[in-house]
Amino acid sequence: MNEFHHLVRFESKEGHIFIGDITEDVSHLESLVGVEAEVFEGTSPWDSGFRKVLAPLPSVPIFPCVGLNYQHHAAEVNVDIPSTPPLFYKPPDALAGPDEDIHVHPTARCLDYEGELCIVIGRDCKNLAEDDNPLDYVFGYTVGNDISSRYWQAPAISSNQAGYAKGFDQFAPIGPVITSSRLLPDLSCLMLTTHVNGEERQRHRLDDMIFDVPAIIRFISTGRTIKQGTVIMTGTPSGVIAGMRDKVWLKNGDTVEVTIEKVGRIKNRMVMEEGRDGP
Amino acid sequence: MNEFHHLVRFESKEGHIFIGDITEDVSHLESLVGVEAEVFEGTSPWDSGFRKVLAPLPSVPIFPCVGLNYQHHAAEVNVDIPSTPPLFYKPPDALAGPDEDIHVHPTARCLDYEGELCIVIGRDCKNLAEDDNPLDYVFGYTVGNDISSRYWQAPAISSNQAGYAKGFDQFAPIGPVITSSRLLPDLSCLMLTTHVNGEERQRHRLDDMIFDVPAIIRFISTGRTIKQGTVIMTGTPSGVIAGMRDKVWLKNGDTVEVTIEKVGRIKNRMVMEEGRDGP
Repeated sequence: MNEFHHLVRFESKEGHIFIGDITEDVSHLESLVGVEAEVFEGTSPWDSGFRKVLAPLPSVPIFPCVGLNYQHHAAEVNVDIPSTPPLFYKPPDALAGPDEDIHVHPTARCLDYEGELCIVIGRDCKNLAEDDNPLDYVFGYTVGNDISSRYWQAPAISSNQAGYAKGFDQFAPIGPVITSSRLLPDLSCLMLTTHVNGEERQRHRLDDMIFDVPAIIRFISTGRTIKQGTVIMTGTPSGVIAGMRDKVWLKNGDTVEVTIEKVGRIKNRMVMEEGRDGP
Repeated sequence: MNEFHHLVRFESKEGHIFIGDITEDVSHLESLVGVEAEVFEGTSPWDSGFRKVLAPLPSVPIFPCVGLNYQHHAAEVNVDIPSTPPLFYKPPDALAGPDEDIHVHPTARCLDYEGELCIVIGRDCKNLAEDDNPLDYVFGYTVGNDISSRYWQAPAISSNQAGYAKGFDQFAPIGPVITSSRLLPDLSCLMLTTHVNGEERQRHRLDDMIFDVPAIIRFISTGRTIKQGTVIMTGTPSGVIAGMRDKVWLKNGDTVEVTIEKVGRIKNRMVMEEGRDGP
């Protein structure tokens, strides 16, 4: 199932879409332009003339998301460590590509980032037994940003539901590749960093996670189907704007870059749509 | 778009699936067996030999759900009237048919019903303007039960997210028909009732709604796409078990029947899966 290295979807100058495999680690690269890839599907070779790198999946059934999964993040937002993963869903249209501009609706105020490791499910699973290995269902990993409107996330506004605040179209950019789980037997040592306009905001190893990848998959699979192609967002470490004393929310033109060592890097520019009446 | 009366999907004795239209109001009927329907798709005529009535849609992109939308229900669960609809999502695999047995996972404890009016979206919409009529995007209405595990919904367990508690497979039975919105220009006078094993539990007219159908659609469409075929669950009136002094949760074999005048009636039996260690 995961006999690839770093799966990539891209569009050529001519507008054709290809799927290919990159053998080298791309997480340290600013851009994939010029990187060589073996093309699995389509006929044109990968070259520096491609137009853009797309989300590694053309569509996603749903995004189950863990609301709180890092010890340090729990501390910064001042909540107790949960006993089970707090789960909410982002809808399929939240999907965006790794360098796509995010068009932010005027009402999505108090905009914040959440750099996250994402699990890509490779085949349907449900009710994993104690002796099933959840990792057998993992296709690979990708980098995501769980973009959030803290205005809508405020308990008094949302009645505590995260779905609306995080469910705007394009609020789940992922990519640029799916790194095969075969290449990443141990995630704990990997570093996640988030930069806003080049300034570092988040830097944590994935070993700060409260619930690890097998625990998350097992929990979500309980009594419910996780469909092939589902992307699970595993929660963000500390360093989000919501946890800062002086909250300077994302503004028009800000770029947010999320990198996970050996997985990849995404970089999205926030484009505030007209009609906005405040940050 | 909605030049039908009461759309129905059913499976014949031979296992073939048909889509048909019933001209009469079926909400007062115990069963659709013997009802005449004009078959739109497929070749067999509707007759009393059909095997079962299916969910009126073969699949649903997602279920956006309003968490609290009735004045009396807000009072019974002791929360303030929200200023905007509290929104969460049920995943696509929550879909179940109008008389399907609901197989309840052993961990889905403290099981409760929520009889609800459901809106079926007829064409994609996003960012409805003030002069757009949200009702132009409505295909019709159906009856739903937003089945809920109150154990998982408890704030201390779920960190206040409703998604997990209400997102088990089959926790959104709908049907038995989609009644054309053309036939229901005024929903406010319609009565919703819920019975458990024949005992009445909920009885409210839809005019107790805090947010009406146009307001709900407009709110959800803000900055996000509502795809054709999306089923919006609009919230439940008072009378749920969670609001009772003595909470006797649903148990194995209980049937929950939800009826909305002129829309339809669904009746589902709860089948507790083995391994359950309590109610």
